[in-house]
Amino acid sequence: MSKVIRNGTVVTADRTWKADVLMQHGRIVAIGTDLHGDHEFDATGCYVMPGGIDPHTHLEMPFMGTYSADDFESGTRAAVAGGTTMVVDFCLPAPQQSLLEALQMWDNKTSKAACDYSFHMAITWWDRQVFDEMAQVVDKGIPSFKHFMAYKGALMVDDDEMYASFQRCAELGALPLVHAENGDVVAALSQKLLAEGNNGPEGHAYSRPPEVEGEATNRAIMIADMAGVPLYVVHVSCEQSHEAIRRARSKGMRVYGEPLIQHLTLDESEYFNRDWDHAARRVMSPPFRNRMHQDSLWAGLQSGSLQAVATDHCAFTTEQKRYGVGDFTKIPNGTGGLEDRMPVLWTRGVNTGRLTMNEFVAVTSTNIAKILNMYPQKGAIVEGADADIVVWDPKRTKTIAAGSQQSVIDYNVFEGMEVTGMPRFVFSRGELVVQETEMRTRPGHGAFVARKPNPAPNRALSTWKEITAPRRIERSGIPATGV
Amino acid sequence: MSKVIRNGTVVTADRTWKADVLMQHGRIVAIGTDLHGDHEFDATGCYVMPGGIDPHTHLEMPFMGTYSADDFESGTRAAVAGGTTMVVDFCLPAPQQSLLEALQMWDNKTSKAACDYSFHMAITWWDRQVFDEMAQVVDKGIPSFKHFMAYKGALMVDDDEMYASFQRCAELGALPLVHAENGDVVAALSQKLLAEGNNGPEGHAYSRPPEVEGEATNRAIMIADMAGVPLYVVHVSCEQSHEAIRRARSKGMRVYGEPLIQHLTLDESEYFNRDWDHAARRVMSPPFRNRMHQDSLWAGLQSGSLQAVATDHCAFTTEQKRYGVGDFTKIPNGTGGLEDRMPVLWTRGVNTGRLTMNEFVAVTSTNIAKILNMYPQKGAIVEGADADIVVWDPKRTKTIAAGSQQSVIDYNVFEGMEVTGMPRFVFSRGELVVQETEMRTRPGHGAFVARKPNPAPNRALSTWKEITAPRRIERSGIPATGV
Amino acid sequence: MSKVIRNGTVVTADRTWKADVLMQHGRIVAIGTDLHGDHEFDATGCYVMPGGIDPHTHLEMPFMGTYSADDFESGTRAAVAGGTTMVVDFCLPAPQQSLLEALQMWDNKTSKAACDYSFHMAITWWDRQVFDEMAQVVDKGIPSFKHFMAYKGALMVDDDEMYASFQRCAELGALPLVHAENGDVVAALSQKLLAEGNNGPEGHAYSRPPEVEGEATNRAIMIADMAGVPLYVVHVSCEQSHEAIRRARSKGMRVYGEPLIQHLTLDESEYFNRDWDHAARRVMSPPFRNRMHQDSLWAGLQSGSLQAVATDHCAFTTEQKRYGVGDFTKIPNGTGGLEDRMPVLWTRGVNTGRLTMNEFVAVTSTNIAKILNMYPQKGAIVEGADADIVVWDPKRTKTIAAGSQQSVIDYNVFEGMEVTGMPRFVFSRGELVVQETEMRTRPGHGAFVARKPNPAPNRALSTWKEITAPRRIERSGIPATGV
Amino acid sequence: MSKVIRNGTVVTADRTWKADVLMQHGRIVAIGTDLHGDHEFDATGCYVMPGGIDPHTHLEMPFMGTYSADDFESGTRAAVAGGTTMVVDFCLPAPQQSLLEALQMWDNKTSKAACDYSFHMAITWWDRQVFDEMAQVVDKGIPSFKHFMAYKGALMVDDDEMYASFQRCAELGALPLVHAENGDVVAALSQKLLAEGNNGPEGHAYSRPPEVEGEATNRAIMIADMAGVPLYVVHVSCEQSHEAIRRARSKGMRVYGEPLIQHLTLDESEYFNRDWDHAARRVMSPPFRNRMHQDSLWAGLQSGSLQAVATDHCAFTTEQKRYGVGDFTKIPNGTGGLEDRMPVLWTRGVNTGRLTMNEFVAVTSTNIAKILNMYPQKGAIVEGADADIVVWDPKRTKTIAAGSQQSVIDYNVFEGMEVTGMPRFVFSRGELVVQETEMRTRPGHGAFVARKPNPAPNRALSTWKEITAPRRIERSGIPATGV
Ligand SMILES: [Zn+2]
Ligand SMILES: [Zn+2]
Ligand SMILES: [Zn+2]
Ligand SMILES: [Zn+2]
Ligand SMILES: [Zn+2]
Ligand SMILES: [Zn+2]
Ligand SMILES: [Zn+2]
Ligand SMILES: [Zn+2]
Repeated sequence: MSKVIRNGTVVTADRTWKADVLMQHGRIVAIGTDLHGDHEFDATGCYVMPGGIDPHTHLEMPFMGTYSADDFESGTRAAVAGGTTMVVDFCLPAPQQSLLEALQMWDNKTSKAACDYSFHMAITWWDRQVFDEMAQVVDKGIPSFKHFMAYKGALMVDDDEMYASFQRCAELGALPLVHAENGDVVAALSQKLLAEGNNGPEGHAYSRPPEVEGEATNRAIMIADMAGVPLYVVHVSCEQSHEAIRRARSKGMRVYGEPLIQHLTLDESEYFNRDWDHAARRVMSPPFRNRMHQDSLWAGLQSGSLQAVATDHCAFTTEQKRYGVGDFTKIPNGTGGLEDRMPVLWTRGVNTGRLTMNEFVAVTSTNIAKILNMYPQKGAIVEGADADIVVWDPKRTKTIAAGSQQSVIDYNVFEGMEVTGMPRFVFSRGELVVQETEMRTRPGHGAFVARKPNPAPNRALSTWKEITAPRRIERSGIPATGV
Repeated sequence: MSKVIRNGTVVTADRTWKADVLMQHGRIVAIGTDLHGDHEFDATGCYVMPGGIDPHTHLEMPFMGTYSADDFESGTRAAVAGGTTMVVDFCLPAPQQSLLEALQMWDNKTSKAACDYSFHMAITWWDRQVFDEMAQVVDKGIPSFKHFMAYKGALMVDDDEMYASFQRCAELGALPLVHAENGDVVAALSQKLLAEGNNGPEGHAYSRPPEVEGEATNRAIMIADMAGVPLYVVHVSCEQSHEAIRRARSKGMRVYGEPLIQHLTLDESEYFNRDWDHAARRVMSPPFRNRMHQDSLWAGLQSGSLQAVATDHCAFTTEQKRYGVGDFTKIPNGTGGLEDRMPVLWTRGVNTGRLTMNEFVAVTSTNIAKILNMYPQKGAIVEGADADIVVWDPKRTKTIAAGSQQSVIDYNVFEGMEVTGMPRFVFSRGELVVQETEMRTRPGHGAFVARKPNPAPNRALSTWKEITAPRRIERSGIPATGV
Repeated sequence: MSKVIRNGTVVTADRTWKADVLMQHGRIVAIGTDLHGDHEFDATGCYVMPGGIDPHTHLEMPFMGTYSADDFESGTRAAVAGGTTMVVDFCLPAPQQSLLEALQMWDNKTSKAACDYSFHMAITWWDRQVFDEMAQVVDKGIPSFKHFMAYKGALMVDDDEMYASFQRCAELGALPLVHAENGDVVAALSQKLLAEGNNGPEGHAYSRPPEVEGEATNRAIMIADMAGVPLYVVHVSCEQSHEAIRRARSKGMRVYGEPLIQHLTLDESEYFNRDWDHAARRVMSPPFRNRMHQDSLWAGLQSGSLQAVATDHCAFTTEQKRYGVGDFTKIPNGTGGLEDRMPVLWTRGVNTGRLTMNEFVAVTSTNIAKILNMYPQKGAIVEGADADIVVWDPKRTKTIAAGSQQSVIDYNVFEGMEVTGMPRFVFSRGELVVQETEMRTRPGHGAFVARKPNPAPNRALSTWKEITAPRRIERSGIPATGV
Repeated sequence: MSKVIRNGTVVTADRTWKADVLMQHGRIVAIGTDLHGDHEFDATGCYVMPGGIDPHTHLEMPFMGTYSADDFESGTRAAVAGGTTMVVDFCLPAPQQSLLEALQMWDNKTSKAACDYSFHMAITWWDRQVFDEMAQVVDKGIPSFKHFMAYKGALMVDDDEMYASFQRCAELGALPLVHAENGDVVAALSQKLLAEGNNGPEGHAYSRPPEVEGEATNRAIMIADMAGVPLYVVHVSCEQSHEAIRRARSKGMRVYGEPLIQHLTLDESEYFNRDWDHAARRVMSPPFRNRMHQDSLWAGLQSGSLQAVATDHCAFTTEQKRYGVGDFTKIPNGTGGLEDRMPVLWTRGVNTGRLTMNEFVAVTSTNIAKILNMYPQKGAIVEGADADIVVWDPKRTKTIAAGSQQSVIDYNVFEGMEVTGMPRFVFSRGELVVQETEMRTRPGHGAFVARKPNPAPNRALSTWKEITAPRRIERSGIPATGV
């Protein structure tokens, strides 16, 4: 049973042209003029784009005895509602827990996923077992490893462990990721703030200034360079961090940066709201920044020094947020965004001329698929690719409101924002999952996407590092000379 | 009569995969497994890539009553011999000459072109006629205009004219290009050097230090920003110029930079050779630089702050070079490179791990086709594209030597360099033009490629400039207040 | 008849200590404990500092048939009222006018100066006569030459002339200064704005964005580098210009930057005031900037990448400003500030901890005296120095108001600003000219300060440039080789 | 008994003038024309400058059961021989050792010092006792604390401890210093190199690339910024570290950088010498760098982004160096330089025009005295200052040779370098200690220089940090709103 999207304009990361798209058995089978199929979907006036990929989500993430509120069911429903057809979530082993065991636990959560998904594995502790299991994790299709430089006493790893893990990544052809904030300093500033009576949500922002993020980014880059492996910096929120990335790239280091849709469009003034709930709902790490950082992030997307837009979707209800009344360090970190990423980025990016449509596709989908080495299975409109497609209606408009969202939480950080540009249809591996406001998701339809290690940038970097490796000096006897 | 390239690995700017490529009527008609055609070409062990595009050549360029030695016949033969299947040459109107008339003259030179070509139009003077004719030039398929900030008294335009022309480009959706060196300062330094007896070829390098190029690049960028139009900087040779480009891009300005294969691999020590001919043969503008600049250029290609590798092929014989004995300002500026660009870049870039194969394709072909708005007709391996294809044998090797080159000149600036990675077959619009060392070019086969104005970056930038345009303040009477 | 300042704390650019200061015959004759003299002035609770030097004023400057409103009488009265005991004004020859003749005209204006003064000579045109007269101007004690890169059709010089003049400065050991804005682009933007109906004072700001200043600064730096001479950039108003200076300094180029007190504390929102007069009174070049630029300028003063704070005092009455009703290009450019520079900088700089007191002295006086080569005659509290001294009361406070100012104009751009830190006493060459609110100036007391050329930075730079100058390559016959 | 230096030219950090200098009781008592005293020293043709201060030495430093070879006797003799009249050494408490006890140990070593000295205290471990004793150390005249970010398992402190100590410095008005190299990464790279058989002295350099230093510098800067205290980075050896400092300073952070005379003039090629001893004698941390870093350091001294030139004098004999045969990690780290710093810097800096004479004085003496808060007791030629004076003969010349040096070690890393510019006389607190080649030092003459905390930059920064400190948001009830 074939489906065809007719009369639309195909927009990919590298071009824009009029074409119909024919799907069968979950794949794109033809792209051309005047195609026909069993079911036809009219894309007149619309752009036919690769479905969005969110490289950074936390669905049903364990937290202090509870879990982030959106699980793979509601989370992926929110995703597809906004045109995102794949999420990459983080598997977080507990200290001393086997990576493989953790992976099994995470896999168990995905049974109701409505769209495809993959995982990054977090390195939350280090010893020989972790070193060994990393190879198995890669074999299972997960060649990307996350490292937390913050969350001291919990997820944080130190430079030693990070170097060891990065070097292991280099051997395995895997990609290290970092959450870059200096955890020691965040912890110290937090204690100082609490001691001074700064216990409200704004204290969260005060405890993690841009300098603290910039420093950690810079450090991770150096360690990756020494280990000879590319690096992916998640949630780049500020100029300091972006500057470190640009500086590295200007020297030929292979570093990727991912801003979040939140940091691109929302700012720190939210934390100064007199309503505690309002502020607490925006608590995430890194926090929203002074508005001037936004220009930096947008410019990065334009110029290619930043490559991917994510959400770090990690939704907690107001009730959960209130765990932190009287102590901001206890407010669960995270906000939603899965449903909003694409419409908000289109509205603020494409409609303003900051991004071309092709750049929009690149940063929401194609670049991510390439960096995570699943291109062109994902992120592409080419024959043979998975039929993850969004038919984007640039005229459709709505006002974002928690009341009508897919996420199960009771608020939305983009509440009230008007967006222009939304999906008319969304297909996940050929299945129609969204038709305008109508959700047709089928829990369980989503499947794990296994990814291979050793993409071209890893191989190229390894070659270069080998060529430029330290060479032993041959000496004429030791010592060669008398004194 | 169809042709098929079998058993190769297709390498494009965005991916690498095993596939056969079927060509018919000059176009690619199928890409897939186990394709067959009337003629089959074995690509076992080879990479099947889009033919190279050289965005910057000067074939049969008029100079002091003579012409650059390679014309469209020998020049395009050299091009295809090295895997380049398209050149973009510069039409240079004389002062007060009609752009259209000049274009006619340039077009006349192309009758023996062996591969496709296009033109950039140079703006060498300014008045209402030029302003008007620019629209007609765009209509003829040439939406890119070159501006010389050097060559005082000849091609050079001043800031005023440059702003006017850039603004005109903005209106027309065209792309301004600049040769960025401060012509006033070059002229003054040249006079000073000659006065001091520094009249040898090294004086040419002394007269145009990197600072002089960096300044002009920075200035052109500002003017383009004010005019609201993207900018393409030709022959970026040094960190100073590259830094200006990076700085602009880091602010979201749409600026492109083109290093030459010469500047990537050769350095200023050539000018210090005791042999006058050796030094003079390397005289070009900008000159070769201190070796430390090379790292900057390579890093730019890796990170995307530089997008295209060109040659500025403008070949003069030793005899022509000797016009400048006793006065370096009279040495014709230019070197060859068309045949060598691809093998040298592969050898020094891909084989060392500085570039991935995909990046190689991007900077030699695909990026150029996109920036010049002829993608995917050119620069792509997709169905429907022109069958400009190079079958690249990564094992083939040679030592570059003037004695065996296609160019008509009597030397080669890369003489003695060993390259590994060369074409096995080259196809120009489906015609086999090279088979290893055998040239099968047909003079006159090459055709003009018309390009359209207003690609996505121009449109996006115009939108952004309109949104952020100065707004008049409404006042409450003038003056509103007494003194 | 001696005078002694007792019980104060001496603050210089390099230290702070308790000491009395004894003056006689216009000079400082002793600094120490328990000094006595004929007249004693109590400095209890006060800082005894070198009198301020304003390196950039335009008193009685000719403009469209009239003159800037403050002349040397009212201007220097305003200066000393605020603790500034010396001004350096600009002599502006008309096109084709002899520099020496212009100097005579300017000298004639100074008869009623209440404090010492010097001049910079402007190079407003170029030929052999100017070249020759520059030496005579230096001989007359004026080794600093101003160049306008803006004011097209009036004061502006082009790159050619600038290079020639800078090179002449290098020979003479003089210091070139630049007003750095790209005059071509300013003119073009102005015409565009007027054509679009943007004729209000805000159009002035729109016509000279930071990029236009940054470009010109960058260009002047390159030209000075090529000419081998230090450079002084007046009224650095923005990060773009400051960045160019920092970049140059980071390469060892000897470039100085002078922010104005206006740009440090006022911002572009003034131009958006609905009252035309309010906006027009703030029209100056460069215009006030977005507030984020202020952080850059303050940081420059702290870190030493900017060295001097000036006013560019060029006062026009509201009536004069109204020449530009309906056409912002006709609004006389300039604001006052002479009386306010020191109190405002102290309040916003020292009181906030942005600057130490020593840094305050450096940027208001000592650095300027050093750069302009009149240290320690001026800018120092040392024996033998001119007794130009301000006794600064850090507790004195006032609200700035046009109604009580010394300047003859009818408004003040700092109107309403509260300052804390003002002079208790001001001495000009040993004469008491201010005692708190009481003015005791004597018109005609002020004298011309002749300055010598060739300070240490010029000499050092010349040595370096000579050592690194281009060297001719000795060749083995031309040509050495056959083809 | 008075002494007078006659007929010389006084050169200070801020000016140059003809004057005689009269000394009595160890102090300068008069500076003027035609002074006379009991003993007269002819300075005709010479410059009379503040004696050099070396802010960074390790005399008789314990190491693996032995000690660095130059103790306070030979070390200070070497110092004065080269015109340096004060050294600041590092007191290094063992883990868990009381700071005060360590200070006593260090003080015991100084009994034979021939010139004045002071100490920095190292923070090598952290707990409440250290926190408390820091106040006592400051009371004893030592308001500067060193932190090692390298030497893992020995001196190294982590970010947590560094933040705590820096914050304590902020409270005490003290200055934190850092040895900036990432110790974790150095240790890991060292192990990797040894495992690969790279065990020669060149391995030392390979194990600590510039990136590793740049990272640590950047990190220390962030931590100091968060703690609200200035920072002094010792032995800045490379552009990466210098760039981090410049970037910080460009934001108004108060960061100082100290290059060593070794890094300014020697480069990494020394480690590639085929003679093991030659290479091992140059082993120090950070290692010598690629020559391009030298330009960066010189430019920093010129422009003021680097402020002080030191030696890190830590001399080991060849015999001691040979502890590391077969394992570079066992080669004692350190080189000499005390006798050579001033002549080498003059020769390579002043004689080439890179530095003015005033800048020479600033970076060898005055800036250091200011930063370490002992100006103008030290570092100045003013009445009342200690008579630490060098009479510098710009014509005297020698070839540096271990055979004729004061240091007790058997080699000199500057061996064979010709210097022009050396002391004619050196005075330490008024005592003549050197007369050309004749040493007249008196062991035990040297005295401890107590320094006060809370210099102006600390106070200013504290004010600024207080003004910009996080402010608690007052909320309208928690939570203010229902869900
Ligand atoms: Zn995170
Ligand atoms: Zn996350
Ligand atoms: Zn050119
Ligand atoms: Zn060209
Ligand atoms: Zn001006
Ligand atoms: Zn002015
Ligand atoms: Zn150290
Ligand atoms: Zn040390």
